[in-house]
Amino acid sequence: MRLILVAGTTRTAEREGISAAGATRDLLLHTPSADAEILVYGEPVRAPVTPVSPSGCPTPAAVTRAARELVGFDVTIVDGGLARPSGAPTVSVGAKPGRDIGDADPVPTAPGAFAAAREFGRSLPDDELVVGETIPGGTTTAMAVFRALGEDWPTSSSLPENPVELKARVVEEAFDASEIEPGQAAHTPELAVRFVGDPVLASASGLVVGALESDTEVVLGGGTQMLAVAALARHAGALGSLTLATTSYLAADVPELSEATDAHDVELVVTDPGFDAADAGPLSAYADGVAKEGAAMGGALYLADQADALDGVTGTTLDVLERL
Amino acid sequence: MRLILVAGTTRTAEREGISAAGATRDLLLHTPSADAEILVYGEPVRAPVTPVSPSGCPTPAAVTRAARELVGFDVTIVDGGLARPSGAPTVSVGAKPGRDIGDADPVPTAPGAFAAAREFGRSLPDDELVVGETIPGGTTTAMAVFRALGEDWPTSSSLPENPVELKARVVEEAFDASEIEPGQAAHTPELAVRFVGDPVLASASGLVVGALESDTEVVLGGGTQMLAVAALARHAGALGSLTLATTSYLAADVPELSEATDAHDVELVVTDPGFDAADAGPLSAYADGVAKEGAAMGGALYLADQADALDGVTGTTLDVLERL
Repeated sequence: MRLILVAGTTRTAEREGISAAGATRDLLLHTPSADAEILVYGEPVRAPVTPVSPSGCPTPAAVTRAARELVGFDVTIVDGGLARPSGAPTVSVGAKPGRDIGDADPVPTAPGAFAAAREFGRSLPDDELVVGETIPGGTTTAMAVFRALGEDWPTSSSLPENPVELKARVVEEAFDASEIEPGQAAHTPELAVRFVGDPVLASASGLVVGALESDTEVVLGGGTQMLAVAALARHAGALGSLTLATTSYLAADVPELSEATDAHDVELVVTDPGFDAADAGPLSAYADGVAKEGAAMGGALYLADQADALDGVTGTTLDVLERL
Repeated sequence: MRLILVAGTTRTAEREGISAAGATRDLLLHTPSADAEILVYGEPVRAPVTPVSPSGCPTPAAVTRAARELVGFDVTIVDGGLARPSGAPTVSVGAKPGRDIGDADPVPTAPGAFAAAREFGRSLPDDELVVGETIPGGTTTAMAVFRALGEDWPTSSSLPENPVELKARVVEEAFDASEIEPGQAAHTPELAVRFVGDPVLASASGLVVGALESDTEVVLGGGTQMLAVAALARHAGALGSLTLATTSYLAADVPELSEATDAHDVELVVTDPGFDAADAGPLSAYADGVAKEGAAMGGALYLADQADALDGVTGTTLDVLERL
């Protein structure tokens, strides 16, 4: 079993109030590199920090790592536009860091990354893949991508209070600046990610399309960003078995999730890691609505549940956090 | 347990008669990328070929992969100057493909790669590492590096008949073209790899120095190229526990190996995978002196032996070959 984390950046995250994936805006750019290292090595190696939210909630990458220690799946990192060198080994698909979506052409590498990731996804020998993402600011770009595809699903937030109005203004700015209108990219998903998206959506959707084309079952581990990946894959014409495996915290935040997955012929699996328990320590922030998902956490919990190891996730995650 | 494969290229391999690591000279440049993919995925993914020697001997990467399937260790690939994109995730240390050592400055990235790999090696959390290499033509550059350090050890060959005279002529040419004389780099190993070496030796020796500096036990999995890495690390002043784990085929080819490891305070472990048995199929070429080592094979056999799984290596390698 292989879990692929697509890790990258968009400068959209640097706007005040957009993301909780880093204690400060300066550290946001390091979060995906650090998440990748935590999955691979169990701790940051080259990245100077362990990602926490401004309120101190630990990164979901620690949960994914814990599930890996319990279940033993392989991890592969795809460079979906990392801004800082990662000590984790990465597969290159030609993605570069995304600019702010208020720019006219924020992700010029998107079509190339989509194509290279598709080839890569097609050539992987695995029968089943779990695919997740780590990109601060990614729910804002996902919202814009839904609009570009002509869809209107809400996106979640790593912040306990979703800054919906701020995100809607940023999305509006993105369409004002770009060549495309809402709905205009329904048949050209590469253009949606290029003009109003981010390099992780481009790389992840290409990867998923290639995997589906070679009859690989794909489990998307994540929330509304991975839902956007499913939408992009379906708009690219990819058929085949897609599951969205997410956390109970994300599902509680987005009541429309079940309707949205149905609309894209995606099975929905929701897993509750039980971080509301008395012994969950700093993980109880998840039960309070911080972070909720990310770094393939929902997919990792799904794998832990399949292996009858869900009970061990809280304790093992706390062990991981202790070593960080 | 983590096994790190440093994978790269030197155009020295394109000289006629230097290397068996590829059926043709055109395919040589793909061999390290394919070896990395075989270790990670069990088969080539982006690389267009499965490496075999001109006589059809399968790549030692298949043996290392088999040991991984038996023992379950983690694999990390360091890009030590790959010339072709690999579908295997890689850690970048800034190494670029090496030019022919007949050039004046064949590896200008060597000092930078040495330094970045040293930082990376220092920051890895593992208590023990196995380090190996895959670079066609690497025994010729290793011979030149020994001379630059003022040492005179022989190097092995992936060919059944070691082209010693050809290699000696190439090494002489390297010193004629470069700024350094034999023995002149005894205290500056980065310059030995820069002027007469290759990017894999630069990256691997930096990695080993960094690992030793952070009290990690290092097992060098390989033959005379990994012996050159040990020499470079000792010349860089690194103390600490070093073991060279090699195959019986390599050890039989280089009777001076035990003296050479002693001279560098390196423990020598020799493992016989038993490919002379009747059921070894195409692996019997190893017993006839083809390939002998490479892609961390000796280190992987050592791990298999430690896990009491050596008996399974022949059968599992044949299974791996069937899937290639």
